[in-house]
Amino acid sequence: MNIALEKLGRRLRLGLVGGGSGFIGPVHRTAARLDDLFEISAGVLSSDPARSVAAGRSIGLAADRAYGSIEAMIRAERARGDGIDAVAVMTPNARHFPEAMMALEAGLDVICDKPLATSLDDALRLVRKVEESGLVFCLTYNYSAYPMVRQARAMVASGEIGEVRQIQLVYVQGHNATLVEAGAKANDWRFDPARCGPSLVLGDIGTHAHHLGAFVSGREVEAVMAELWASVPGRQADDSACLLMRWSGGARGAMWVTNAAAGGEHGLAFRLFGEKGGLEWHQERPNELRHRRLGGFEQILTRRLHGALAPAAERAARVEIGHPEGYQEAFATLYRDAAEAMIARRTGEPGDPVALDFPTAADGARGLALVEAALESSRTGGWADARLQP
Amino acid sequence: MNIALEKLGRRLRLGLVGGGSGFIGPVHRTAARLDDLFEISAGVLSSDPARSVAAGRSIGLAADRAYGSIEAMIRAERARGDGIDAVAVMTPNARHFPEAMMALEAGLDVICDKPLATSLDDALRLVRKVEESGLVFCLTYNYSAYPMVRQARAMVASGEIGEVRQIQLVYVQGHNATLVEAGAKANDWRFDPARCGPSLVLGDIGTHAHHLGAFVSGREVEAVMAELWASVPGRQADDSACLLMRWSGGARGAMWVTNAAAGGEHGLAFRLFGEKGGLEWHQERPNELRHRRLGGFEQILTRRLHGALAPAAERAARVEIGHPEGYQEAFATLYRDAAEAMIARRTGEPGDPVALDFPTAADGARGLALVEAALESSRTGGWADARLQP
Amino acid sequence: MNIALEKLGRRLRLGLVGGGSGFIGPVHRTAARLDDLFEISAGVLSSDPARSVAAGRSIGLAADRAYGSIEAMIRAERARGDGIDAVAVMTPNARHFPEAMMALEAGLDVICDKPLATSLDDALRLVRKVEESGLVFCLTYNYSAYPMVRQARAMVASGEIGEVRQIQLVYVQGHNATLVEAGAKANDWRFDPARCGPSLVLGDIGTHAHHLGAFVSGREVEAVMAELWASVPGRQADDSACLLMRWSGGARGAMWVTNAAAGGEHGLAFRLFGEKGGLEWHQERPNELRHRRLGGFEQILTRRLHGALAPAAERAARVEIGHPEGYQEAFATLYRDAAEAMIARRTGEPGDPVALDFPTAADGARGLALVEAALESSRTGGWADARLQP
Amino acid sequence: MNIALEKLGRRLRLGLVGGGSGFIGPVHRTAARLDDLFEISAGVLSSDPARSVAAGRSIGLAADRAYGSIEAMIRAERARGDGIDAVAVMTPNARHFPEAMMALEAGLDVICDKPLATSLDDALRLVRKVEESGLVFCLTYNYSAYPMVRQARAMVASGEIGEVRQIQLVYVQGHNATLVEAGAKANDWRFDPARCGPSLVLGDIGTHAHHLGAFVSGREVEAVMAELWASVPGRQADDSACLLMRWSGGARGAMWVTNAAAGGEHGLAFRLFGEKGGLEWHQERPNELRHRRLGGFEQILTRRLHGALAPAAERAARVEIGHPEGYQEAFATLYRDAAEAMIARRTGEPGDPVALDFPTAADGARGLALVEAALESSRTGGWADARLQP
Repeated sequence: MNIALEKLGRRLRLGLVGGGSGFIGPVHRTAARLDDLFEISAGVLSSDPARSVAAGRSIGLAADRAYGSIEAMIRAERARGDGIDAVAVMTPNARHFPEAMMALEAGLDVICDKPLATSLDDALRLVRKVEESGLVFCLTYNYSAYPMVRQARAMVASGEIGEVRQIQLVYVQGHNATLVEAGAKANDWRFDPARCGPSLVLGDIGTHAHHLGAFVSGREVEAVMAELWASVPGRQADDSACLLMRWSGGARGAMWVTNAAAGGEHGLAFRLFGEKGGLEWHQERPNELRHRRLGGFEQILTRRLHGALAPAAERAARVEIGHPEGYQEAFATLYRDAAEAMIARRTGEPGDPVALDFPTAADGARGLALVEAALESSRTGGWADARLQP
Repeated sequence: MNIALEKLGRRLRLGLVGGGSGFIGPVHRTAARLDDLFEISAGVLSSDPARSVAAGRSIGLAADRAYGSIEAMIRAERARGDGIDAVAVMTPNARHFPEAMMALEAGLDVICDKPLATSLDDALRLVRKVEESGLVFCLTYNYSAYPMVRQARAMVASGEIGEVRQIQLVYVQGHNATLVEAGAKANDWRFDPARCGPSLVLGDIGTHAHHLGAFVSGREVEAVMAELWASVPGRQADDSACLLMRWSGGARGAMWVTNAAAGGEHGLAFRLFGEKGGLEWHQERPNELRHRRLGGFEQILTRRLHGALAPAAERAARVEIGHPEGYQEAFATLYRDAAEAMIARRTGEPGDPVALDFPTAADGARGLALVEAALESSRTGGWADARLQP
Repeated sequence: MNIALEKLGRRLRLGLVGGGSGFIGPVHRTAARLDDLFEISAGVLSSDPARSVAAGRSIGLAADRAYGSIEAMIRAERARGDGIDAVAVMTPNARHFPEAMMALEAGLDVICDKPLATSLDDALRLVRKVEESGLVFCLTYNYSAYPMVRQARAMVASGEIGEVRQIQLVYVQGHNATLVEAGAKANDWRFDPARCGPSLVLGDIGTHAHHLGAFVSGREVEAVMAELWASVPGRQADDSACLLMRWSGGARGAMWVTNAAAGGEHGLAFRLFGEKGGLEWHQERPNELRHRRLGGFEQILTRRLHGALAPAAERAARVEIGHPEGYQEAFATLYRDAAEAMIARRTGEPGDPVALDFPTAADGARGLALVEAALESSRTGGWADARLQP
Repeated sequence: MNIALEKLGRRLRLGLVGGGSGFIGPVHRTAARLDDLFEISAGVLSSDPARSVAAGRSIGLAADRAYGSIEAMIRAERARGDGIDAVAVMTPNARHFPEAMMALEAGLDVICDKPLATSLDDALRLVRKVEESGLVFCLTYNYSAYPMVRQARAMVASGEIGEVRQIQLVYVQGHNATLVEAGAKANDWRFDPARCGPSLVLGDIGTHAHHLGAFVSGREVEAVMAELWASVPGRQADDSACLLMRWSGGARGAMWVTNAAAGGEHGLAFRLFGEKGGLEWHQERPNELRHRRLGGFEQILTRRLHGALAPAAERAARVEIGHPEGYQEAFATLYRDAAEAMIARRTGEPGDPVALDFPTAADGARGLALVEAALESSRTGGWADARLQP
């Protein structure tokens, strides 16, 4: 069932902001296309208008809908009868805040890459703006959209493992294990604090791991003790971090994130233990959830067993009989969820609550609170408060 | 780079044949959409014209392009300036032959689900028709499109494991472990020999496993000794098979396929051994290829290491940094390959040879030769010739 | 509790036959020592008496108890007040029959390496001799002594997976992947049919895999269709085999065994499926048993959960908290089981029935029946009867 | 080759201290027996002399060599011509120091369970005593004796992964996930700080994980920031710890140890990353070492490939063809190593340096330094110095 066609009689019209080069543009566009709920109608693929037109043509945009700035896109699209409904922001980190804010101010729904902003202040301004506007805001903490991650969240929420006691998070990548920024990546915004934010490794992957822990456990981080460092000699930015974390409800644990693990690959994983059992998940084998049980044998939960999975997991699963699903499908699930919310907003009908449980600006602000607390702890050598002050 | 937009100035126009209900329709449509090379323009989603229109609307087809038969679709589309370029056939097995043949006769390129036909004779007629017509024919032996399967094929072809000596194939699914055909699936065409072909289990999954072995090893089956049986009491059709197989070049091995393994899931895997090493791959962990080496340690090949993979594997990989890919991406790769061939045919420019190495009608005919030999062996209790006679 | 010390007031006295060189001697001796139930008292470590004395000294035998032949050992030990109670036979395959027979005729209990004999006739003579004599006979099908293998047997026996339908066996080693017999192993008895029996690969590892399947399933093979071959060019003996197998009770399946898989290691595994679920075990990870369930998630059974395991598995497990156990411990469990039987025979008290469920001569005879049926099938190209005729 | 028989003409005579009840006694005794280098000659199996005799009889000790105290054993054994050469201490933690000290003072070689002592001061006194006496002292950090752990140490030492940058340690057990000390284990010394030392979880398993990291990396911990807590409500002792660790040479990382992970099993693992690659090992699959490589594919190192492994790994491996080895074999390897040192001391000939690389008192003292630093950090909420001051 294509709910856009059914409920709106048309697909949602999406404007891209960024993604003209690099890895993440195709990921967003494929995600938008996968469930056929969006039409990619317009885009800002370069700050140079001519280049934007050329890049737009290569992905099928009409020449008059490829723009040189988000301001230009908003202005022109607003003037059209068939203008965009929403934007997807996938620019360097420091651009997320101003662009998302402009889109919200123009009344557009927003899908935004993480981290939400490069400072907690900016993040909180977006949170308030989203609340005031009533617009849809989906932050692409994409790992939370894997069926088995949603299953884990549902199991914790329903008390399957009892009170959560220990939360362990790791994200161990290898692509920055050498001084890549000395060579071809010399101008990569990821190594430039002005464009990527104050902590390279926390902004890039630490926020992912943190959100995963929070999403699955249903807890929030209260305090952290952090070690941030550049493990590659000659590197200015941090590439590795270890954190001790105290979570609401009394759970504790650690987090290790790095993208300088030589020979490492994806390496995102969580392990939770509660009173009655534990859950473990690894992104490299995303379709398996290990459920350890106090008085029983370990179980491997997969998508095979219909009826035994939580509705949120069933809904996120796409293919039958255990055929493997991956990163792109999970990313698309966030687009589908966001579409559900956008359609609900337009029709006035409530959407499926299961679908509406996607990461939003408040989750992004919590990520920034963690980053800032970690930086403080790293400076002081002691515990820092990581709570999102209301 | 979107080669359809770049070389044709437009997407290829696809007509669907089947897929109005069931598992495989959405798989094909998503595959067609994933790389944005096709526009789903028309379709036969039901033999009842009104139902076809309703089903077409739910997937975004214009009412006048949802047809009640492939004949009607061919006739009407031919009359349009913007008629379809190709069809995708995803009907019950016994319909593949007539529908694919009609499409070819109408000069349309074809993407066809497996098995190619329900008899070797029909299969060979399609092979000849494809050869005569020069049209594109892509058979969706989708497992061959996984990056690591293509890597395995390239490694065998380049002599990495030396002469192939042993080939072991398994496909162990569980969804028919009970007498499902006595209940809700009473009219499922898969249990009706008239619609699914002479062997349920070989037609459904045996041909997949066989093609996988042939694709990776570069060898063809010469003789088989087979045991086919219904392992579930009360079942009329076979659901399990074990085969001894002799391959060209002297390799030998066995194949075990079943969809009646209680509690089983996907379970497709191959293990090959040659003079100098071995290769092992499991669909449940599709992004890993185990390479055993006579004088070295076992290696786990993944998509991380650019430059170290064969071009065919690099081309089939979509996401970076080891993010997992799955079934749907592999399926889409066949659509992308077929698109490459269709565009090459239209432009007269040769396509990328790496992309053009997709399964075609001749591969399908080899599958039918295997099925018929297995049936013969099962009857006689001895070896049967499985070669495709030219 | 050391039942030898407790019930006999002393350890059992063991005489070794073979094991002066090669891999298996230390394995047997360590197995005998592990639970402290045996004293290694005498031995025939070479057919040259002086060499036997030297070899005996290196393992702690008194000079006057290291013999040049089993006849000499039997004669001399019988004359001592503290003579041996039992022998352990670990000579080349063709010696098992005469030596085991001599030991039985001398009234000694026997632990014997597999295969039991090199012909079914000899095997059946041993079976009858064991029955007549009432002596203990333990055949070291050592894989059956792993805790998780015994767990699997108990689960099948108690109906946990329902009627067994499919049995798949593989044993894929790599140490004969090159023509080793052309070099340093030129005189290795394993490549000499006169000393190893009519099928190298079936005698060496096929009988292990076959017994494992029979032990776990509680079924016997009724008929086989076999392919036996030398996969390494220039090799005279077979090194690879694939068999189709029909088991009592209607189960069917295949077996693949080879020691010529280049880069392969141990590779022994079984997969069973019954009406309600399946069991899978791999020797390389011997402490895990995968239990697939028709209406439930897959479980990983380990030794952690006391009370949830079958008594036979609990008894075979040695270390707590999931610390890994391996090959040597399983081997030792057979020695412990045999000791239990020997002590029961001596004391007249019944031993623990759980401990007494070890492989014996009849199991060995079934192995020979399989080997002979496989050879026949390989010659005729059709099915052969593999039943043990009573 | 039995080096005790060959070089001494007899086995080493061992006196047990402890192990009359509980898990670890049989582990030590089996370890002593496995390679046939020791004779278990005497023992203190209870502080009650009559009970000690009874317990001694059940393991084969002569009645006059089962003592009620280590003092009594030392006195009586010294008076015999065939008195013990060495003791093995396996009492509650707080007894290790006095008993090991008494043995050293009596001129006996010592094998001692970990932790070495319950205070750093005591530990350092043992270090000095060992140095002065020249006696053999082997501390049973048994995980360091696995072949693949020794392989990892050798690879790091030879620069295979370059300068070590990140060290991650986890040990996640589950047997204390409930308030076991409220029930049957009410008098278990492990929950009594007076008998087990100041930190239950660090003394019990934290020292193991720490030593494993130090052994493999060849680095020492310089500073720690620690969180220690009781995760089970009502528990007085700690059962969980997370530590940030700074290692010599600039490596950093974290450690997570707990025995309160509900449903958890053994769970000991390390992951190291250096400039050029990484190494990963898990005790549950002890025969595999994952070697990630910066410019190559990941390799799985196993014991199969003779000549490709470091001598220390080859020496520690016992069985061929990849047959699995486990916990008990690794434990026995420490006994074998200690025997090598004891024989070298007695004969005056240098032992095999590869064998002599076993954990000793200095390693134990480093463990106590870590424990005390972690306790200090836990109190102060900041970094604490963990170096062993000379």
